[in-house]
Amino acid sequence: MNNFILHTPTKVLFGEGQIAALREQIPSDARVLITYGGGSVLRTGVLARIREALSGMTLFEFGGIEPNPSYETLMGAVELARAERIDFLLAVGGGSVLDGTKFIAAAAPYAGDKDPWHILETVGGEVQSAIPLGAVLTLPATGSEMNMGAVITRKGTGDKQHFFSPFVMPRFAVLDPVLTYTLPARQVANGVVDAFVHVIEQYITYPVDAKVQDRFAEGLLLTLLEEGPKALAEPDNYAVRANIMWSATLALNGLIGAGVPHDWATHMLGHELTARHGLDHAQTLAVVLPVMLDVQRDSKRAKLLQYAERVWDLRDGSEAERIDGAIAATRAFFERMGVPTRLRDYGIEQPDIETMLGKLEARGYTALGEQGNVTLALSRHIYEAAR
Amino acid sequence: MNNFILHTPTKVLFGEGQIAALREQIPSDARVLITYGGGSVLRTGVLARIREALSGMTLFEFGGIEPNPSYETLMGAVELARAERIDFLLAVGGGSVLDGTKFIAAAAPYAGDKDPWHILETVGGEVQSAIPLGAVLTLPATGSEMNMGAVITRKGTGDKQHFFSPFVMPRFAVLDPVLTYTLPARQVANGVVDAFVHVIEQYITYPVDAKVQDRFAEGLLLTLLEEGPKALAEPDNYAVRANIMWSATLALNGLIGAGVPHDWATHMLGHELTARHGLDHAQTLAVVLPVMLDVQRDSKRAKLLQYAERVWDLRDGSEAERIDGAIAATRAFFERMGVPTRLRDYGIEQPDIETMLGKLEARGYTALGEQGNVTLALSRHIYEAAR
Repeated sequence: MNNFILHTPTKVLFGEGQIAALREQIPSDARVLITYGGGSVLRTGVLARIREALSGMTLFEFGGIEPNPSYETLMGAVELARAERIDFLLAVGGGSVLDGTKFIAAAAPYAGDKDPWHILETVGGEVQSAIPLGAVLTLPATGSEMNMGAVITRKGTGDKQHFFSPFVMPRFAVLDPVLTYTLPARQVANGVVDAFVHVIEQYITYPVDAKVQDRFAEGLLLTLLEEGPKALAEPDNYAVRANIMWSATLALNGLIGAGVPHDWATHMLGHELTARHGLDHAQTLAVVLPVMLDVQRDSKRAKLLQYAERVWDLRDGSEAERIDGAIAATRAFFERMGVPTRLRDYGIEQPDIETMLGKLEARGYTALGEQGNVTLALSRHIYEAAR
Repeated sequence: MNNFILHTPTKVLFGEGQIAALREQIPSDARVLITYGGGSVLRTGVLARIREALSGMTLFEFGGIEPNPSYETLMGAVELARAERIDFLLAVGGGSVLDGTKFIAAAAPYAGDKDPWHILETVGGEVQSAIPLGAVLTLPATGSEMNMGAVITRKGTGDKQHFFSPFVMPRFAVLDPVLTYTLPARQVANGVVDAFVHVIEQYITYPVDAKVQDRFAEGLLLTLLEEGPKALAEPDNYAVRANIMWSATLALNGLIGAGVPHDWATHMLGHELTARHGLDHAQTLAVVLPVMLDVQRDSKRAKLLQYAERVWDLRDGSEAERIDGAIAATRAFFERMGVPTRLRDYGIEQPDIETMLGKLEARGYTALGEQGNVTLALSRHIYEAAR
């Protein structure tokens, strides 16, 4: 096991009706900016319930944070937060609203002479403070509700970049599975695939004898496998929704990644597919991951065999057969969730590989993966093989 | 899954050499009281390394906190903390030092007109503040380094009681597996058994469809089963010590117990065995648990069968046979760790059952367990059957 520091101070309020506990989580004299996305929280009544729970408090609202939240949109909220001296942010939505709100939190007090895009360029390293924030999650997927990361897109340049800062770790997260009943199937499926690949990125690397982390990762994968298809078939099954919601949070709150190597090459190649071709984040992961595992089968051999045995119960046949079986089963699971796994399934016959490689190179992502062996040449091969 | 609130703000610094990071965790102008136990931290040099890491800071020391830390001993530290205006406590040791330090933290600022034993009598409910504390763990077992509970004994009356308060949650915990190399085998074994039973108390109850919590619990049990005997055979195997240390912390930091029923009847009956007959805490658990599972085989049926299958790989035979097999395997594991599982093995032929039942009754513990069906009559039967 590698050395690690793990700090997860986010208070989780899990279960039906926890919106009622919101009021106690926010200072009573706070000037609160509620942030949300495209308006589903208006249609479902979630925002009305939150207003009710916080009635009498000083509330502002900023809607319209889009999927793959953009710098351009978010800067509007930054201006509002500065003008209204906002001192608490409440994100209501999924990973995009969460990530966008983290950017608002860090950008509003950011040093006046620098464009807040600098936060992304320095991966959060120069963030010195942030407006405190909390979250009401409506879409289990990214884990952003209990971690310190965010991914922001700059529409003007087609850049999709991430930053980390302990200052943007949510103070609390309300996780009510009932709020997810009304999600479109596509978002449910995307969420399950996203959480699944988050686990894989921290699990299928190389062994460091971290037995607890491995068992926990396998536990999350098995739960997502069992519950994912059920969530599509029985949208209002509370237990299923609860298990998926809790799995997605634990998939990326630092716990299973503490003390083990991380990969993230699939995410990096995926980000470029979203930025260039507009695929949903989870769609890019479903496209890239099976190829990534296949081309890395030697360097990831030990963990692939463990994955095959413990997650897919593949114990017979040669090592190559078990690895093939595990990769094929992974691809089949994504397809069963309704998330296609080849670029051509999305109508992309000619991916703009050179542009995507150029972006990767410009960011210095020329040696990705836990062993630094995902070169630009290998990335080209992966994009080709994912067609 | 039941509703839950989970808040684990303790910052974990895990791995060899993390004592060097201590200085950054404590305010530089703090008046720090270092608390420890019987002196092993002096012999092993751990205390010297901590003094070195904190050199130049204002340090005080209080040693002599005994196993099953006593109110009588701890009140000496409370007086010292008050007299020296201590504003940070650093516990160096195992669960007893941690628990004792939590009591010191809450008792020192406790309302002047009440005896701090009142904290135990009110199970921590009236604690309004505490001196902040951190920990350097030398004995993985109780999980106290990342939770808000403590168990304190009053020697004068033979009472062993617990309290909880969010104010005594450690700010940080240094977990260096190397510090555990020099532990006596008895303490290693006790720690593994203690952590194992902590998991069981939150796992073998009744199902609430909490799939992640179940998988995580099983992951911890499997890790303790695999690594426990190795720790005895290879005391300086870093990976083994690391896996045990991390398992013991996660066994009782709130994570696997969030949203599921809890039992704790084994602990309650065990506490009386320690108070009356002086057995080590883990010894009492090893004695009580196998009988407890046996007498509860009907109400715990579903989870016992899951435990048999997933932890012990028992898939054949009747339900009764699989449950018998799992209980026998649990007992055999404790024995293999060198922790005997019957009172007579400790020379106790005639346990003072009436006194122990009297204590349980006086505390209102007449309906223990997740279903409240461990009555005094059943407790009598369990003590009898544990002989």
